[in-house]
Amino acid sequence: MKIDIQSRDVFYVSDGTAITCETIGHVVLGQFPFNANEKTFPFVESKEKLEDLLREIEISFIKNGVKPLVFFSMVITELKEALLQSNCYGYDILGSLVQQVETDIQIAPVPQLQRSRSVSKDSDTYFDRIAAIEYTLAHDDGVTLKGLEKADIILLGVSRSGKTPTSLYMAMQFGLRVVNYPFIDDDLSRLRLLPEFEIHRHKLFGLTIDPQRLTEIRQNRLAGSDYASNEQCLHELQTVEALFRREAIPYINTSSLSVEEISTRVLEKAGLRRRLL
Amino acid sequence: MKIDIQSRDVFYVSDGTAITCETIGHVVLGQFPFNANEKTFPFVESKEKLEDLLREIEISFIKNGVKPLVFFSMVITELKEALLQSNCYGYDILGSLVQQVETDIQIAPVPQLQRSRSVSKDSDTYFDRIAAIEYTLAHDDGVTLKGLEKADIILLGVSRSGKTPTSLYMAMQFGLRVVNYPFIDDDLSRLRLLPEFEIHRHKLFGLTIDPQRLTEIRQNRLAGSDYASNEQCLHELQTVEALFRREAIPYINTSSLSVEEISTRVLEKAGLRRRLL
Repeated sequence: MKIDIQSRDVFYVSDGTAITCETIGHVVLGQFPFNANEKTFPFVESKEKLEDLLREIEISFIKNGVKPLVFFSMVITELKEALLQSNCYGYDILGSLVQQVETDIQIAPVPQLQRSRSVSKDSDTYFDRIAAIEYTLAHDDGVTLKGLEKADIILLGVSRSGKTPTSLYMAMQFGLRVVNYPFIDDDLSRLRLLPEFEIHRHKLFGLTIDPQRLTEIRQNRLAGSDYASNEQCLHELQTVEALFRREAIPYINTSSLSVEEISTRVLEKAGLRRRLL
Repeated sequence: MKIDIQSRDVFYVSDGTAITCETIGHVVLGQFPFNANEKTFPFVESKEKLEDLLREIEISFIKNGVKPLVFFSMVITELKEALLQSNCYGYDILGSLVQQVETDIQIAPVPQLQRSRSVSKDSDTYFDRIAAIEYTLAHDDGVTLKGLEKADIILLGVSRSGKTPTSLYMAMQFGLRVVNYPFIDDDLSRLRLLPEFEIHRHKLFGLTIDPQRLTEIRQNRLAGSDYASNEQCLHELQTVEALFRREAIPYINTSSLSVEEISTRVLEKAGLRRRLL
């Protein structure tokens, strides 16, 4: 049998959603030069569910001749031990951290099943988050400019500069109420801010992007159109960046950033506190 | 000075967005019975930025008489060491995992700055994610039923059962194209599925919720309305759950679940593979 050491089976296992396991696993594996064949096992809270996983571990080991990597987070000790006795390399993503904290602060942990965010414990937080998502949806893409006084931040930029995904992420992850407004041709020729924005100046934040990257993104959407042409992209960006500078609106370039990175950098530059949900 | 051991300063520090640090920190601290005063320091990539952090650590220690807890993730060794020499309890959220993996698989890591998701490395993934968000936004709340053949899943449920946040989360986190459709009075009296859904039966998934919880959520939105009355909520839910059973549509109760948990459970029950982004 030929063993391809450049490729490994990786399993994410949790008694909760396993989203945290995936996140941590991705960052850890991002440091190593091999391909991961990933599979996720959420809500492993019983022996029955663990049996399914153990079977897959055994199949992977037999098939590949090397142990799969398993990033896990489980509270029930028996399940954890059974997992660690199987033919895998197991990584408890929280275990050592919990131990270290206990040693440092001398307070005993009270183990509970993993819950990414709890609904019942804190209903206000639930409503805040839903309200932020709703507000942000209602104010996407300049649909309405009513209720700007409730906005935490107002994102400005040309079409396809990343406003919508950033707005939704900020609402979902940080519970912020985000307005986003696209500059379209009309605004560009007038090159001025809408009067509605005047009294909310302190909330304005610009997104810009490299012309080349914008062209690529627009071509992906409407190949061959004027809208996606190099000239149009360059013109729009130059006009809008001049506006940002003239009006002293802070802005960042989103070209090489993920949605998470854009959101976090905007928050930081705007001096907004994250509402940890 | 009175020391309140039930409350601690907690800092999240990263050379990236620090979102992973926050997530891990929350889960770890969720196991301990004390209150955390949290603050996040993203993009700590330079000595200057580290100095700001070290100052805050010192202030916290002097003010509280106990060391703050610092969950961190940083690649640059000098920054890491300087942090660990300050008056804090430091927890490297990745360090020990990377070491363990290295030992197990005998491949040396290639450290790189933390990036939650990379844009430039993998442009297809970027476009997939944006396309999923756009599709999902366009198909929110029954706005259109065109293009259902491209949907990964179609969520059904009464108003306020959690469809919109769940749809957006699935798009954002897992890159899935989600349609969601609310049952409104018309459908309820007819109590049948729209013909448009017939050929997509295998994609249908129901969300339901306890009558009491639904009443609470609707009261929060429109207090005192018929819409938010106990009777109306109970009637809608009974009707819709009967439909789910009659039509053999799988469904889950969202009452005590977070958006992350709903999304993950739906994926699991629907047998959809997560697209890890």
